[in-house]
Amino acid sequence: MELLDKLNWRHAVKAMNGKQVPQEKIDNILEAIRLTATSSGLQPFEVLVIENQEIKEKIKPVAWNQSVITECSHLLVFAAWDTYTPERINEVFDLTNKVRGYENVGFENYRQMLLNTYPQKPADENFTHAAKQAYIAFGSALIAAAYEGVDATPMEGFDPAAVDEILGLKEKGLGSAILLPLGYRDEKNDWLHGQKKVRKSAETMFTTLK
Amino acid sequence: MELLDKLNWRHAVKAMNGKQVPQEKIDNILEAIRLTATSSGLQPFEVLVIENQEIKEKIKPVAWNQSVITECSHLLVFAAWDTYTPERINEVFDLTNKVRGYENVGFENYRQMLLNTYPQKPADENFTHAAKQAYIAFGSALIAAAYEGVDATPMEGFDPAAVDEILGLKEKGLGSAILLPLGYRDEKNDWLHGQKKVRKSAETMFTTLK
Repeated sequence: MELLDKLNWRHAVKAMNGKQVPQEKIDNILEAIRLTATSSGLQPFEVLVIENQEIKEKIKPVAWNQSVITECSHLLVFAAWDTYTPERINEVFDLTNKVRGYENVGFENYRQMLLNTYPQKPADENFTHAAKQAYIAFGSALIAAAYEGVDATPMEGFDPAAVDEILGLKEKGLGSAILLPLGYRDEKNDWLHGQKKVRKSAETMFTTLK
Repeated sequence: MELLDKLNWRHAVKAMNGKQVPQEKIDNILEAIRLTATSSGLQPFEVLVIENQEIKEKIKPVAWNQSVITECSHLLVFAAWDTYTPERINEVFDLTNKVRGYENVGFENYRQMLLNTYPQKPADENFTHAAKQAYIAFGSALIAAAYEGVDATPMEGFDPAAVDEILGLKEKGLGSAILLPLGYRDEKNDWLHGQKKVRKSAETMFTTLK
């Protein structure tokens, strides 16, 4: 299976060479993110695609000074909704009705159910739920990048409040959840390059109940 | 890009036909899960692969009676660690040293940093963090299934405590995070089959900062 070869090829690159990733490859990675399944189809996150070097320089010190932040070609910032509001929920259901060209009773009941539950929950609980959906898309992005032969560094090691501040995310009702620098590995300076991939055995991770 | 064609092909199937998925395809999907990147490489989750029909019948009523639970071929239950313990963290670092055949000072410092932070945090915070890692793997599983032409139904709609009880997960230090029935669509009874895929526009989801 070709896909597994790509997944064995990738690793969390620790140094990049600054080379630009072609726009077509970036577009394919973003499209995989856009097509990702999310809970109730709400797609409760946005992605900032940072090419601007000055902004990367600002983020680097609040991301443990990891060099890939400034060495990458494009820095993806997955930013989740700060909470679920009726407006945000309605927008998705209205879009669905528009695209499909009709209203469905079961679907409208489902809309009401969501309207009667999510907005009433604490914002931090909703943000966590939204962030989890962004993590599914993050999984898509990692695979799509590997599929395109583009290196990536999955990154939770940063100060979310500081990144929110730099990017003005709070004002947009968003909070940074996870980062993904995209670029090409600098084989000489990437200490993980050439190291054996370490994963638990299938026996440890999976239990089959026949 | 072939991968995007597969992602456009997939949807959250609402009825399956009970047909068995070949073991080779299941193995490839599990391998994509196993190869998934996780925070600090901890892989803080396990996956139960349920073929047993009686267990599926028990889970169905605590999963909103969704028919795919019993119509699927294999039901994947992503179960996250209930918390991070020194034993769990050490196991991963010891495995890494074993596989790579040497100890690295920076890596050992990183181990100590994790030992001095994660186990001291509240268990529910750690569980949420572990569950997020399972969501990245869930994104891998969705793509790998589509790549194999296997249908899937991403599913958050279930009672985690009840599923934990049925599968004895609490005793194993695990908690169910998300479900993934795998099988083949029943085109006649799957109301989503043939419907247009609805996703927000790229303009809505992505902001490029040049």
